[in-house]
Amino acid sequence: MKNQIMKEIKGGLIVSCQARVGWAMYGTSIMAAFATAAKEGGAVGIRATGKDNLLAIKEKVDLPLIGINKQFRDDCEVYITPTYESAVEILEVGIEIIALDATKRARPNGENIKDIVLKIKQNYPDVLVMGEISTLEEAKYADTLGFDILSTTLSGYTSESSNVTSVNLKLIEDIAAFTNTPIIAEGKIETPNEARMALESGAHSVVVGTSITRPEILTKRFATEVAKFSEKE
Amino acid sequence: MKNQIMKEIKGGLIVSCQARVGWAMYGTSIMAAFATAAKEGGAVGIRATGKDNLLAIKEKVDLPLIGINKQFRDDCEVYITPTYESAVEILEVGIEIIALDATKRARPNGENIKDIVLKIKQNYPDVLVMGEISTLEEAKYADTLGFDILSTTLSGYTSESSNVTSVNLKLIEDIAAFTNTPIIAEGKIETPNEARMALESGAHSVVVGTSITRPEILTKRFATEVAKFSEKE
Repeated sequence: MKNQIMKEIKGGLIVSCQARVGWAMYGTSIMAAFATAAKEGGAVGIRATGKDNLLAIKEKVDLPLIGINKQFRDDCEVYITPTYESAVEILEVGIEIIALDATKRARPNGENIKDIVLKIKQNYPDVLVMGEISTLEEAKYADTLGFDILSTTLSGYTSESSNVTSVNLKLIEDIAAFTNTPIIAEGKIETPNEARMALESGAHSVVVGTSITRPEILTKRFATEVAKFSEKE
Repeated sequence: MKNQIMKEIKGGLIVSCQARVGWAMYGTSIMAAFATAAKEGGAVGIRATGKDNLLAIKEKVDLPLIGINKQFRDDCEVYITPTYESAVEILEVGIEIIALDATKRARPNGENIKDIVLKIKQNYPDVLVMGEISTLEEAKYADTLGFDILSTTLSGYTSESSNVTSVNLKLIEDIAAFTNTPIIAEGKIETPNEARMALESGAHSVVVGTSITRPEILTKRFATEVAKFSEKE
């Protein structure tokens, strides 16, 4: 079953469908519509956050789901499925892959990633567990914890990787060089070319979010370039 | 008032928010969400089709609206606001710009574009009227009918222009060379660079739709490129 999922997503595009409260596209029905569009366009999987969105998507789209549970707290840097409880909440939806921040950074309730992974694997043995990291060092540590998949999602989003402003192909190559654990490439992939290059760098699959499901950012890319014409005049 | 609108959209990006029945993103609330996202991203105007979508967008977003009324019939090639009645339906919403197919092609009820434009200008003098064409010859004819704006929307979508598969900068240049009527560039603009080049070619504003508001097509662009990696292996 887990091998079957890995086969289904191999070499394919996973589309991340996310919107926070206050964003124009926020809402479970819009997330399900994006997921439906993604499937129509050839996606092999969907990534989404939170129980309600995952349920709404699961009802409409029969593709493997990467579930996360983003939780933002002022006193904690870790926000991607930071606790075991946050993991259980989305595991109960019935997802194929669960993704968690796999860094050593402090989590709520003094929990640590090693124990969270162990408990998930004990209690949900059929679910693939993905560890999200931002640096090679973090990947090396995460790879000792028994993750089924490593992902580069956090590259550019931690203080340790704040210098990263575009797709981090080097990190994919470096991880592929030390482990056979499958890698899912994610983060700052803006063009189809970059997505293909992520596979060439050693990724098993590639996740694209912003460049497909964030029309406000897509608009900004166009508006910013268009404005250059008037500035020159 | 009309001059004010032309000023507001000058050099700017207009985002087209459209989905047909059966498409994943179909629905007035999703169209209004896309329009909201477009405004957040820096759009200076919104293009949308049909009374219900225009009303939903108008309620959420205070940007100039280009209204069209797409109507597909088996016996008629003209589908962008083909009749006077279809025009009135959206004019009653209260839009700043109405766009119509401006070709000489046959329309329902034996109507012709010349009379439709005249009647709109008589009955809705405060609305800018935009004529959509696919070739230079059509633009020359349309420009004799009193349109406030010409647009290249149909380039690539008529039998006369079926050889056009990417943004038609040449057509913009050619129209700008023979008339001072403002041109709105639309059709097959895939990248921010192409949008800027449309302005450089002489367009007053530029409309982008698919590359911002059609996640199924955006997904397909990524999925197609990603698939090349596995095909090579």
